[in-house]
Amino acid sequence: MCDWRYLRPNMEQNTEAKRTEIASLGEFGLIDRIAKTAKPRQPSTLKGIGDDAAVIDNGDGTATIVTTDMLLESIHFDLAYVPLRHLGYKAVAVNVSDIAAMNATPKQITIGLGLSNRFSVEAIDELYAGIAAACEAYNIDLIGGDTCASRAGLVISITAIGTAKTEDIVYRSGAKPGEVVCVSGDLGAAFLGLQILEREKQEYLVNPDMKPQLDEKDYVIGRQLRPEARMDIIYELKEFGVRPTAMIDVSDGLASELLHIAKASNVAIAVYEDTLPFDNQAAMVATEFGIVPATCILNGGEDYELLMTFTQADFEIIRKKTALITPIGITREAGEGNILMTKGGQSMPLTAQGWVAF
Amino acid sequence: MCDWRYLRPNMEQNTEAKRTEIASLGEFGLIDRIAKTAKPRQPSTLKGIGDDAAVIDNGDGTATIVTTDMLLESIHFDLAYVPLRHLGYKAVAVNVSDIAAMNATPKQITIGLGLSNRFSVEAIDELYAGIAAACEAYNIDLIGGDTCASRAGLVISITAIGTAKTEDIVYRSGAKPGEVVCVSGDLGAAFLGLQILEREKQEYLVNPDMKPQLDEKDYVIGRQLRPEARMDIIYELKEFGVRPTAMIDVSDGLASELLHIAKASNVAIAVYEDTLPFDNQAAMVATEFGIVPATCILNGGEDYELLMTFTQADFEIIRKKTALITPIGITREAGEGNILMTKGGQSMPLTAQGWVAF
Repeated sequence: MCDWRYLRPNMEQNTEAKRTEIASLGEFGLIDRIAKTAKPRQPSTLKGIGDDAAVIDNGDGTATIVTTDMLLESIHFDLAYVPLRHLGYKAVAVNVSDIAAMNATPKQITIGLGLSNRFSVEAIDELYAGIAAACEAYNIDLIGGDTCASRAGLVISITAIGTAKTEDIVYRSGAKPGEVVCVSGDLGAAFLGLQILEREKQEYLVNPDMKPQLDEKDYVIGRQLRPEARMDIIYELKEFGVRPTAMIDVSDGLASELLHIAKASNVAIAVYEDTLPFDNQAAMVATEFGIVPATCILNGGEDYELLMTFTQADFEIIRKKTALITPIGITREAGEGNILMTKGGQSMPLTAQGWVAF
Repeated sequence: MCDWRYLRPNMEQNTEAKRTEIASLGEFGLIDRIAKTAKPRQPSTLKGIGDDAAVIDNGDGTATIVTTDMLLESIHFDLAYVPLRHLGYKAVAVNVSDIAAMNATPKQITIGLGLSNRFSVEAIDELYAGIAAACEAYNIDLIGGDTCASRAGLVISITAIGTAKTEDIVYRSGAKPGEVVCVSGDLGAAFLGLQILEREKQEYLVNPDMKPQLDEKDYVIGRQLRPEARMDIIYELKEFGVRPTAMIDVSDGLASELLHIAKASNVAIAVYEDTLPFDNQAAMVATEFGIVPATCILNGGEDYELLMTFTQADFEIIRKKTALITPIGITREAGEGNILMTKGGQSMPLTAQGWVAF
């Protein structure tokens, strides 16, 4: 039962003959490697690793949709400027966003929480007030989880569970050449909000008495601290009787998500820089920081908007009915390459790398 | 959208006028507090916080069972002596154990993983080899999750998903006075295994060349490093056509679990010290460490056996068919008190405290 070989050598964890650094694989290489060890054996597993959420067949024409996202202190958030109430809300919203990206309806969440004794009961109340507010906003139930001590900062792991008719589920893999690539809302603002909060922190550390310079930055900061999952878009599309052919939520930056859809659907995507939706306030902040808008949009991340592809016929319906969805490009044959067509008319290859935090 | 009040005061996290320490609530007090903020609003939520797992109605006579458990380095495991392969296996098994405790069948898991750059790709392969072995053993699929960088040691958060006919689900709350309290397997060995591993670590730190003294300790160490979820018991009970009236898995120590069933079912429980199942090897190790067996059994934890109550008629069926289940006590009226009847004939009140790691 217990393999003794392990006991002593394990005392020095890195005695392996061969040591490959995680950084050499990257995030997506690591996920691919893990996915290979995860061969589905249950007939009810309709979709395992490789989309925004997994899909479990209930056997009656409906499916259960499941997604897990983990937020770690000092990796995903800095409690120097992230209010616990907003953090609780955001932790739920980013999971709901993954359920939305499957064209499903969120119903329940579980929460795994690691807490250090640095936190007071009042601080935990704040965190849960944010979680409760998100549960109310998205009409979902907190149904369980695990709360434990942590010596390693705040750890939040949320699993969201949703439902959908099996035929309504939208995967990353459904796009075909000649479709319209669209995105909800605007992009890049959350990344700029983070830049402001980081700058504020540094200024505070130097001079705690100085007042924060946050005039006309409420939108971009709000996008960073308290994003919303775009369930409104999902409900609206249902109302229009329109279904995306492929969909993903924009969590890692638009470029990364475009490449996910392109790869999963075996198409190529061309997007046009001048169509990318960018908020006016974000534009001002980008100028202030000297960051090119396209960088914020393509590589910024944490927008939690929906990236979707539609048939041209369906796009015609949407175009007349809503201003919440913007066309930004087209799908084409896989061999034609994933590109950004710049305002200057140049064709640039799209690239993305996932996290490189290691 | 963004509440500015938070920004600056938050720079020093503990400026609240009132500060209540988590330790003053304890684990179960904290869970009760959280449960109060989690009022179910979805009709499909049959059971939220307060049992081994949550229960979601599929609307067709079946239910989806969901549980989340988190394992944090230096809180739940010490990589000085826990092999990553066993850790991966155990992380899955402890979640499957919660599904078993609902009398359900596990089907899928998701994994949230926080990894530091201390880990090589080969180390992650070891962890996933253990996870894959457990998926095979319990016939479940790894269907998704989240992998991210951690600056705070290894973080493993697993959500297990199972199914059951709604009428077959067993809650903690179903016991009635006059029933037989039973437990599967034996108890207390995992706690003793941990004592050995901790002693080995200390000895290794003093003298790295000394050989470990592990003769005849394989069972107790195996119980600590690589526990099994008792799905075999669940399948056996189904075969016998018998269903427990209440059930919980033994993760925190028998005393704690007895009190959970007693409270949820509004009964009292009396257990008899001389009936508590204790392995022979565990008895030798307990003697070596000078620990009373009842302490290991009642407060040790991590046994992952099933604590069950049966009607007397059902117990008669079990008694004739299996040696894997041991009767250890009886349920009685709530007012009669939760007690341990010692070998010497003394009546001692049962107490439990959950984790006190803060």
